[in-house]
Amino acid sequence: MPDSAAVSRETEADPPPWFQSHIFVCTNRRPDGHRRGSCAARGSEVLRDYMKARAKELGIKGIRVNSAGCLDRCEFGPVVVIYPEGIWYRAETRDDVDEILVTHVTEGRRVHRLMLTEKDVPPGKG
Amino acid sequence: MPDSAAVSRETEADPPPWFQSHIFVCTNRRPDGHRRGSCAARGSEVLRDYMKARAKELGIKGIRVNSAGCLDRCEFGPVVVIYPEGIWYRAETRDDVDEILVTHVTEGRRVHRLMLTEKDVPPGKG
Repeated sequence: MPDSAAVSRETEADPPPWFQSHIFVCTNRRPDGHRRGSCAARGSEVLRDYMKARAKELGIKGIRVNSAGCLDRCEFGPVVVIYPEGIWYRAETRDDVDEILVTHVTEGRRVHRLMLTEKDVPPGKG
Repeated sequence: MPDSAAVSRETEADPPPWFQSHIFVCTNRRPDGHRRGSCAARGSEVLRDYMKARAKELGIKGIRVNSAGCLDRCEFGPVVVIYPEGIWYRAETRDDVDEILVTHVTEGRRVHRLMLTEKDVPPGKG
């Protein structure tokens, strides 16, 4: 058995995407003062609620905004990951959320100022 | 502004995938007797814990198993969605989880007997 996740590419036989844009907002909460911090301690729950409401307000179809457990990039939070494209963002404010919804989701571009990259590795995880 | 999520394709400038296989297990819980039921009421929390432990035991690299809030396909739960490929499964037993980890994640194939398709539309959502 291979010891790693295989590259599992979409094939013609796969069902069409259920959501065009499936956004996961980390809402994990650690105790105050924890070494890694946590996305909820950085305000992610309010931002998740805002993102849900704002997506509806903007009339974006095919989107789902979900809470998720710890995404393990805590130091760069509040973190959000958007699938299927697998782009990670740090969203700290309502303006950040607006820009992600408009620029990334509706226009299919990237919000470079908020994107995490492969260099954003939590200490001890590299 | 477009009113729908754009198709946001991976480009060469995007960072490489942070996780090769990012699995979200719905752990939403509704009160007993709710019309739609819920994944937690169908046992998803235990299955999530098992999937995490089993992925580690199998030595699968590049995988992350996360809890998620309501994925809105409750009637077909316990539901699991695997990104970036966006394949949905109903995982009801440990054997189901094993098969998803081995066949889908490590071999890059599909577990057709457990897959949700575009026909698995919750009542009132079509």
